[in-house]
Parts: sequence; C-alpha cells; structure tokens
Amino acid sequence: MNAPFQARAAEPLLLPRPYLLFLGDTRNPEFAKTAFGLRDWAGELCIGEYGVEGCEVTTGLPNMAPREAYGAGARSVVIGVANQGGVINADWVPALVEALEAGLDLVSGLHARLADVPALTDAARRHGRRLIDIRTPPPGIPVATGRKRSGMRLLTVGTDCALGKKYTALSLWRAFAARGIEVDFRASGQTGIMIAGSGIPMDAVVADFEAGAAEILSPDADPAHWDVIEGQGSLFHPAYSPVSLGLLHGSQPDVFVVCHSPLRSHVVGLEDYPLPSVEEVIDLTLRLGRRVNPAIRCGGVALNTSEMAEADAHAHIAAEAGRLGLPVADPIRGGAAFDALVDACLGPA
Amino acid sequence: MNAPFQARAAEPLLLPRPYLLFLGDTRNPEFAKTAFGLRDWAGELCIGEYGVEGCEVTTGLPNMAPREAYGAGARSVVIGVANQGGVINADWVPALVEALEAGLDLVSGLHARLADVPALTDAARRHGRRLIDIRTPPPGIPVATGRKRSGMRLLTVGTDCALGKKYTALSLWRAFAARGIEVDFRASGQTGIMIAGSGIPMDAVVADFEAGAAEILSPDADPAHWDVIEGQGSLFHPAYSPVSLGLLHGSQPDVFVVCHSPLRSHVVGLEDYPLPSVEEVIDLTLRLGRRVNPAIRCGGVALNTSEMAEADAHAHIAAEAGRLGLPVADPIRGGAAFDALVDACLGPA
Repeated sequence: MNAPFQARAAEPLLLPRPYLLFLGDTRNPEFAKTAFGLRDWAGELCIGEYGVEGCEVTTGLPNMAPREAYGAGARSVVIGVANQGGVINADWVPALVEALEAGLDLVSGLHARLADVPALTDAARRHGRRLIDIRTPPPGIPVATGRKRSGMRLLTVGTDCALGKKYTALSLWRAFAARGIEVDFRASGQTGIMIAGSGIPMDAVVADFEAGAAEILSPDADPAHWDVIEGQGSLFHPAYSPVSLGLLHGSQPDVFVVCHSPLRSHVVGLEDYPLPSVEEVIDLTLRLGRRVNPAIRCGGVALNTSEMAEADAHAHIAAEAGRLGLPVADPIRGGAAFDALVDACLGPA
Repeated sequence: MNAPFQARAAEPLLLPRPYLLFLGDTRNPEFAKTAFGLRDWAGELCIGEYGVEGCEVTTGLPNMAPREAYGAGARSVVIGVANQGGVINADWVPALVEALEAGLDLVSGLHARLADVPALTDAARRHGRRLIDIRTPPPGIPVATGRKRSGMRLLTVGTDCALGKKYTALSLWRAFAARGIEVDFRASGQTGIMIAGSGIPMDAVVADFEAGAAEILSPDADPAHWDVIEGQGSLFHPAYSPVSLGLLHGSQPDVFVVCHSPLRSHVVGLEDYPLPSVEEVIDLTLRLGRRVNPAIRCGGVALNTSEMAEADAHAHIAAEAGRLGLPVADPIRGGAAFDALVDACLGPA
C-alpha cells in the first residue's frame, strides 16, 4: 500500500519499429509461434526475417541480413522464437550482436533476460543500442487513482487463461478500424505487446501497481475513441485473479466481451477447478466493474471453436446466442455472427 | 501468466530475533510508530532501544549499545522510525555500521533500501551480516496451485485500507492463544512482519505470484491449528483490490472478519469512491472466497471506534450487532463484545 516516490510519469513500453524477425536455429514451427503471430497480426510492422545456420522455419517474409534490414527501415530485431526453457541460445549471440552493430535494438519476450548476456550488453553499450526485455514492466508505474478517463474502452475477459482473449481483442480492433472508428489495441501480454508495438506486461507488475498499470495502458482519449484492451487470466482463476481484477478496475471498461472455450471443462492444469459458466463471468464482471464504471455492460461472447468441425461450431454458436440472449461469435471464423457481436459492442450509433 | 523456473521452495521472510530497536534522531513520537507497535505487540522480541544524538523519543525499553544488546541475545537491529520520505538519514549510518560490527543484522521497512547505502553493504560484507529490506519479497515465490491446505484459517478484510485489519488480526491471535489454541499470526505488511518476525510484504509481490505468495504465507498445518492472516486493502479499492483478491484466493480462509471505521465515508484519498457497506463486503468476500473454500463464512465485524467517545462507541457497536445479526466488536476496546466475536470465529467446539 506504499507508493514509491514518482520521479516522472510512467508510460507503456514502446518498441522501435518496424521489425526484423529473428528465427534462430529453429527447426519446428511450433517454437516460432511469436514470429507467425507477428506476421499474421502485425505484418505491416515486419519487413523481413533472418536466422542462423540450421534454421528450417520461415514466415514467408524476405530473408534479410541486419544491415540490409536497417537500410530498408527496420529499427529492431524481435526474437520470434522460443526454445524449451526460453533461454538465449549461445549460437544466436553472434547474429544478435550483428544486429546491434547494424543499428537495430533487440526485443525479447523470453524468460532469459537479454541484459544477462555479457556479449549483448557489451555490444549494446558500444553501439548505443537498447536491449528490451518485454517481461520487464516500464519503471515508475503509479498507484491507480480511480479517476474516470475520457474515451470508450472494451476489455476482453475470460472463463480461463489461454482461450482467445488476445485474438478476440485483435479481431475486434480490426473490425472497429474497418468501420472507420478511431481505435487502439492495448496489449497486456508479451505477444500482444510485440503485435501492438507497445503495451505493459500486466502479469509482471507488482500487485500494488497493477490497477495503476492498467490506467496508464489506456490513457484519456477523444470521447469517440475506443481502446480495445487485451485481457489476462480470469477472475475465477485461483492464481491469476489479481491480474484480471487489476485490469478490470484500472481499465474501467464500458464494454466487455467474455471469451470461452466450449470444450474446456476445467481450469488448465487445475483439475479441482471447474470452469465457471459464461453467465457467472458476466455477473461477476458487471458487479466488480461497476465500482469504477457504473455504465459497464456485456457486449457478448467470443467462443474459441478451433477444435470443432465447422458445422458443429456454427450450430453451437447459434445455440449459445439463443440460450444467453446475447451476440455470440468465434472471431476467427468471423461472419454474420461476428458482425453482430461488433454491432453490440459499439452499441446504438 | 508465465512462471519463471523454480529453483527451490520459497519461504516467507524470517527476521533474526530478538530485536534491538533503532530510534535514529527522532524527536516526534509520530515518526516512531513502528517502534511503539513492536513494543506493544511483540514486547517479548524487543530487548532494548538505541538512538543517535538528538533522539528525544523512547519506548521505555532499556537503552543499549549494539554490543551490549548482542551480549543480551539480540540478533538484529530493527529501524523503528520513519522520516518524511522514508530515507536512511546520513546521521544514522555510523550507528548502523556499529550494529553490523557488533554481530547484528539490519532490518528496515523504509522506502530507501539498506543495500543502496555503500557504507552499510561494505560493513555487512566485512562482518558477514545481512541487510534485510522488508519491502523486498522473498525470491522464488511460486504460482498458486489452488490446492486446499490442512488447518484452519482466518483472514481480516476491510471496507478500505488503514482501518484496523492488522490490529484486528493481532487481537484475535492473542485471544485464540489465550484460549489455549495453537495459532500463528501471519503478517502480510511491513509492521506486521516485524511484529511476527516473519511474513511476506504482499503489496510488493508481482501480480502473477500474489495468490501463490498467500499460499506459502499460511502452509499446511494440523487440522486444529489456526492461522490468523493480516489482510490488506479492500476488494472495493480501485487501486489495491488485486492485493486483496490475491490474499483471499491464496489464503482460502474458513472464516473472515470485516474491519470497518464507522466515521469514514469515502476511500482514503479518493473522494469519488464512497466506502462500501459492511454487508457488501461480506457478500462479495463470500462469493469470491467460495471459489477456493466452499465452507467460507463471516465470523463478524471489527469496528475501529478509536475516534468515538466510549459511550458512543459501545452504543454504536451494540446497534450494529443488532442491525447485522452478527457479532460486532472493537478489538482494541475488548470486553464481552470481543469475546463473542472470538466465539463466533472459532465456531461450535
């Protein structure tokens, strides 16, 4: 409950763009998910890829050496791969030093910190470049004030972790933009931060400042502007609920969308914990969210039906919409159901 | 949502005892609250006090030089004072170095870190002593598992910060012990940690590990053993709610006591936020707490009536007990009302 002295206003992390994607020595596309996510969701930020000997994975982007990429406008190398353990492979270091020498900053979301590799810190210092570990929150995050901010906000929430809160937020962001609405995607996790080029790793923020971090993640904006905020965890998760509540209280959303995976019965990894129902999540989110925004409402439900056959998925989506009396869609499948969800989130014109 | 690799089991901070209290150059007793709290609540852990030139405050404990205190059994010096800003006054350093030389560890809850004072780190290294900053959580805190632990647990919760959650927990701990019950006070804030000699500064833990920290704060115990856990913040506080929810989910309490200050109408420092009612706190705590312990119940209400005249306080306590249909007491005033609260917390024998 004790705020350290605030020397200056804190801001979310801001990544230098565009990116050159680093693929290391990866042979298995499963380990290059970050690179594929960046290609799919932030393709305009990615100007090329490179790897080291042994790399057998490609995103389909042009292969470029760091110096060439810098000449083409790149301003950072993003490590787009993860090995088991999330360590910085010794084989990668010369290629990463080459990037620093070429004028590029380094961006990593691995468990291992770039700053713990002496060859990288030496090269960064020599060339005046930055090593950006996305798991490290920005300094000086303030305690939340609870002050109502201007502009509109949407937060994705969930019945559990890892069932589509990021992709739902990205899909809504794209759909809002396609309708000509002024909108920002506000990233709260590592992959999201790389996609957005900025954000705060909410799970790594000290608890006393969690809601404050959510406040600076979506600052005051024009009254008609929307922030679509990537949610984390679940209010019903016995470990990650503090992250979810800090995001809810600090985001003070006008609208939330509940993300759910129909085939999941229990919290991932915790067989003693059945998933809450979508209705329970709606009810609790309304109740807690009203503390900071009395106008909060549920825009609808996003289902992750990636493991269902198409016909089954559409039937299930329609049945859930009928049962809940709310728009229900799988944002990745899109279609009329998703258009209706977007309509409901935006509300009456 | 990403747990770093766990090298070893984490444990709460453990302070070397007994203490010698350091009073610095303090002239105003208001700035020596920590020392007075230690004298009042952990008198058996305090064998003396010392200060530097200009000190005009005393706890009434014997004045002792560090070497003398070490000879009498002391194993650490606790900085029992805070100045404006919570800094380590340059005038204090020689006296603190003297303590390290005498074989005592240093314990501080100030904003400034002991380890940032070169003269102290040098002396600590030279003499093999430890500098313990209570604001720094222990390393290696795990992600919560949600697994139900053995033993009984009581958590104090509140309508706001700073209205008696620590003193209520301490009072219940003493009362349980006086009835011959096996009981531990589990401290979650700095002053509480000094009083208990161990604990975790829950407000300084990274959000992803908040509930995990609460789990290791009250480990498995004998079925009849009680942990009385110091609460923090409030589920209704727009900044500190993540700390409160992490404590609730990780503590999985069997019983909670709601702490409230009858004369307070709004959250301290946030005039846009009216305090929730005691009934709202009971209802929300039950609802969120059932996720981890379906047997959770409210033991009663602790009112901080320190600013009311005695007759007014007793009348108000009786009226609230009638209105709520629950035991209500001011733990500091004690009496039959407090005995009834203790009875209700312990439940039928």
